Amino acid sequence: MSQTFTISIDAMGGDHGPGVTIPALAQAVRRLGGGVRFLAHGDGARIEAELARWPELAGKVEVRHTDKTVASDEKPATALRRGKGSSMWNAVEAVKQGEAGGAVSAGNTGALMAISKLILRMISDLDRPCLTASWPTVKGFTTVLDVGANVDCDAARLVEFAVLGEAFHRAAHGVQRPTIGLLNVGSEDIKGHEEVREAHRILREGGTGLNYYGFVEGDDLTRGVVDVVVTDGFTGNVALKTAEGVAKFISGELRTALTSTLLSKLGAVLARKALLAFRERLNPPAAAPLLGLNGVVVKSHGGAEIREFADAIQVAVDLARSDFAAEITRSLSELGLAARPLTAVAGQGGE
Amino acid sequence: MSQTFTISIDAMGGDHGPGVTIPALAQAVRRLGGGVRFLAHGDGARIEAELARWPELAGKVEVRHTDKTVASDEKPATALRRGKGSSMWNAVEAVKQGEAGGAVSAGNTGALMAISKLILRMISDLDRPCLTASWPTVKGFTTVLDVGANVDCDAARLVEFAVLGEAFHRAAHGVQRPTIGLLNVGSEDIKGHEEVREAHRILREGGTGLNYYGFVEGDDLTRGVVDVVVTDGFTGNVALKTAEGVAKFISGELRTALTSTLLSKLGAVLARKALLAFRERLNPPAAAPLLGLNGVVVKSHGGAEIREFADAIQVAVDLARSDFAAEITRSLSELGLAARPLTAVAGQGGE
Repeated sequence: MSQTFTISIDAMGGDHGPGVTIPALAQAVRRLGGGVRFLAHGDGARIEAELARWPELAGKVEVRHTDKTVASDEKPATALRRGKGSSMWNAVEAVKQGEAGGAVSAGNTGALMAISKLILRMISDLDRPCLTASWPTVKGFTTVLDVGANVDCDAARLVEFAVLGEAFHRAAHGVQRPTIGLLNVGSEDIKGHEEVREAHRILREGGTGLNYYGFVEGDDLTRGVVDVVVTDGFTGNVALKTAEGVAKFISGELRTALTSTLLSKLGAVLARKALLAFRERLNPPAAAPLLGLNGVVVKSHGGAEIREFADAIQVAVDLARSDFAAEITRSLSELGLAARPLTAVAGQGGE
Repeated sequence: MSQTFTISIDAMGGDHGPGVTIPALAQAVRRLGGGVRFLAHGDGARIEAELARWPELAGKVEVRHTDKTVASDEKPATALRRGKGSSMWNAVEAVKQGEAGGAVSAGNTGALMAISKLILRMISDLDRPCLTASWPTVKGFTTVLDVGANVDCDAARLVEFAVLGEAFHRAAHGVQRPTIGLLNVGSEDIKGHEEVREAHRILREGGTGLNYYGFVEGDDLTRGVVDVVVTDGFTGNVALKTAEGVAKFISGELRTALTSTLLSKLGAVLARKALLAFRERLNPPAAAPLLGLNGVVVKSHGGAEIREFADAIQVAVDLARSDFAAEITRSLSELGLAARPLTAVAGQGGE
């Protein structure tokens, strides 16, 4: 890798701040082999103190001091009004200014979406950047979108998600022609509500150029039937949280079952390594790109540990390195789904 | 229990037919202590052959012979046209005629819904009977509805589901004032689409007399936050199938993890009993009432085993024994949600 990519980091975001975000930079450098440098936005003194612990980061991180941060419980509208100059804002602004190929934050999701939309603008008619989940399957990972940002979706929106998800999956997972499925309550053409049937018709007719598989159902998510599953933000969010709830429930039940008798306790001890490997498999990568923006922004979850924040950085690098943004713009414009003129979307960056 | 209840059985429905449905009657009699008798609809010779094996059923089962059955892949519309006189049809017809307090079938769901609607009529404006899931939680079971029958739901429908689910949960689980939650993508009033916000407003204002908790999210399902979770048939179906998929995925991953090394294999053997108990806990009761009909109809799943079909019979007895149907009619009529005159809904029993 000869080219160097710059990633802009909100060093203060998330539950742990620089104590996690800076060590994650060191881990990312080790993984990516050096072709990456960083802009770290936040409390200069705290960032420098962390940097001193990681010699491999010497000369690779430019610290951009700011006292200001966006609180984890701040309303998106408040973040828009008062967030200017915060570590989150500046991390995104650096992408807009062309100083970085992508931004990563583990901060407040709603605020990050609103700020990113205001600074970078949407490349389409979406209300808000689309949230994506990497869903563990028996075969690897399926990209599921939208998982919560756009609650009301007509057929055109769903087709747009298919375009966004396809380009993301190719960039992040290296699959040349990802297969696309539309989440529904059955596989026949007549199933589901009007929006999903109309999107199915558009995708099936082939004018989109996408590798469309057809309808998929809830249990097809973990079966890995397709690479990308498209759904509205309401259904996607419920599915994602339901899955998280079920996984947590099963872990708890398993713990109870395995510690109920002396024999099963002994069994649990012997099987410990296997059970740990299993739990690891269930932790999805903690990186969710915000799709549909003129630029790369990746959200890591608030409780992200070092490894997880490094995962998010890796996704940002993969996206920055790929033809991702240009592909999406091209596809959407061919489908007549590209953005209205910028003046028309200005000032809409609310929740 | 002095009163005797009669339950009408589609003996031919499901993957196994009388080989499961008749032994399940014996199991139900043992569980319920005798206060129950049955009408068994289907192939007389096969039913009699099975009955001969279960002395405890002597004098408790009236066999109603018919050669006709509804195929598991038959379209609801076809079942309506050609299903008259089938074991499924006759099982439901016996409820209409007052010969039985409830009907149970493990046959084709779509056909059972259409036939039940045509014969018994809806007590409200619902398109189709509402499908319910008993969702395992850390505390017991939550009733979730609709899980697939009514895909498009306005606010009035969602409120209606709350009434149906509340009465069912009381009858089936003996909870006097079940708590009701509305499935959404967040807990604030402004979250979600219009239908869910409007239903929230109606339920919160208290005029329904229901014990309304507020919004719940996907992960609250397994946490058992409320007794009844209300959602539209699209979201409910996706959530249910997603949960089934995740549970299956985790079982598979666990099996792989536990058989990967000799030590973990030994651990798995020692923990075997605990793991079996755990899997048992994850099998939800295989009984789904069809709610909103003038009469009790319970669907058992196609692959139901003896114990599961007996569970479905028990649910039918619980509902027949309770004030369930009268309560629902009363509540819906107080809320102005009761059915239009029967003439207006006649002949709408399609899919």
